[in-house]
Amino acid sequence: MLEVSVFNTPRRGPKPKLGTRDALVQAGLALLHAEGYAATGIQGIVESVGVPKGSFYNHFTSKEAFGAEVIDAYFDRAHGRLRAFLSDTDRVPLDRLRAYFDDLIEGLRAGGFVKGCLMGNFSAEVADHSPLIRDHLTAHFETWGGLFEVCIAAAQDDGTVGQQVTAAVLARFLLSAWEGALLRMRAEKSDAPLIEFTQVVFGRLLGP
Amino acid sequence: MLEVSVFNTPRRGPKPKLGTRDALVQAGLALLHAEGYAATGIQGIVESVGVPKGSFYNHFTSKEAFGAEVIDAYFDRAHGRLRAFLSDTDRVPLDRLRAYFDDLIEGLRAGGFVKGCLMGNFSAEVADHSPLIRDHLTAHFETWGGLFEVCIAAAQDDGTVGQQVTAAVLARFLLSAWEGALLRMRAEKSDAPLIEFTQVVFGRLLGP
Repeated sequence: MLEVSVFNTPRRGPKPKLGTRDALVQAGLALLHAEGYAATGIQGIVESVGVPKGSFYNHFTSKEAFGAEVIDAYFDRAHGRLRAFLSDTDRVPLDRLRAYFDDLIEGLRAGGFVKGCLMGNFSAEVADHSPLIRDHLTAHFETWGGLFEVCIAAAQDDGTVGQQVTAAVLARFLLSAWEGALLRMRAEKSDAPLIEFTQVVFGRLLGP
Repeated sequence: MLEVSVFNTPRRGPKPKLGTRDALVQAGLALLHAEGYAATGIQGIVESVGVPKGSFYNHFTSKEAFGAEVIDAYFDRAHGRLRAFLSDTDRVPLDRLRAYFDDLIEGLRAGGFVKGCLMGNFSAEVADHSPLIRDHLTAHFETWGGLFEVCIAAAQDDGTVGQQVTAAVLARFLLSAWEGALLRMRAEKSDAPLIEFTQVVFGRLLGP
C-alpha cells in the first residue's frame, strides 16, 4: 500500500533518504489514515518501513505518542494547502474559501471518496481514550478554524457575508459541517454530501 | 461496563430474559459505541453476555454482519426519539427541530461528551471497508434526513424558513453539520461545538 510503482519512472539521481523517524511517521500516516487507529499495528508500520520493531520504540514511547505525531504531520501538510488558498489575494475572501473547498472536493473525487480527514477520524475513534491525542486535535482544529475566521471576517468587512453571527462561530461551524460531510461522503461513496455542503455554505450560510 | 448496579434496587419480579441474540446485539451496541469497531473483539462481547463464543456464530455469520445489526438496533432507538420530537404538534415545526437537538445536547452533557453517534463513528472507521455496513448507514441516514426534510418543508410553508435552498438539501446538510459537531465535541470534551451548532442553525441557516 505504501509502495509507489517505479516502473517507467527511472530515477534521475539518488533518492533523498528519510530518517527512520520521519519514515515511520509517513508510513504511520498512510496506514492510520487508510485503516484506522485500532486496526493498525506497530508491527505493520515497522514492516512497511523495513526496520525492526525495537526501532519504533527508540523513537516513540508509545503508539499514542506516535499517533499524536502523525496528526501533527497530517495537519502540517493540510495547513500548508489551506494557507496557500486563503492568502491568494487575486481572489476576494469568500472566493478563496470556495476555491479551497473545491480543491479538496476534487482530491476526494480523484481518491474515490475514502479516508476522509484524519483529524475527524481520530476524533471519532481515539479522542475519548487519549487526552494527549485530544490536545493535538483541538490545537489543530483551533488553528484551522482561526484561518477560516480571518477569511470570513474579511468577507464580512467587504459585505459579502452578513454579520448576524460572528466570524469565529461561523468558522468553527464550517469546520464541523465539513467534517460531517466527509463522514457522509464515506458512507455514500459519492460527492453528493460535498456538493450539498458547498451549495448550502456558499448559497445560504455565507451570504449577505 | 455493561453491568448495571443492582445494589439498593431490589427486583420486584423475575427479570424479563432477553434472547441470546438480542443480548449479544445490546452488548455489542454498548461496546462498539464506547470502544469502536476494531477495538472491540467478539470475545469481549460474548464474555459480557456470558455465553460461549460458538454461540455468537450461531446467530451471526461474521463480525461485519453483526455490526450491521448493531447499527440497525442503534438507529431503531434513535429513530423513535426523533419521531416523537418531530411529530409534536404542540410546537411549530422549527421549534420541534430545536427541541430535538436541545434534548440530544442535554444527553451528551450528562454523558460527559463521549461516544458521539454510532453511525458517524462507523462512517469514519468502517465504511471504507464494508459495503454491507455502508448500505445500512446510508439507509438510516436517508430515513433520518427524510424526517428532517418533512419538518423543514413545513417550516418553509409556514414562512419561518426561507426557500432559497430546498428542504431536502438543508436537511442533509443539517445531518452532516450535526455529525461534525459531535466529532469536535469529542475532541474538545465540551458543549461549545454543539451550542455553536444551534446558534448557527437556528440563528442563521434556518431563518426567513
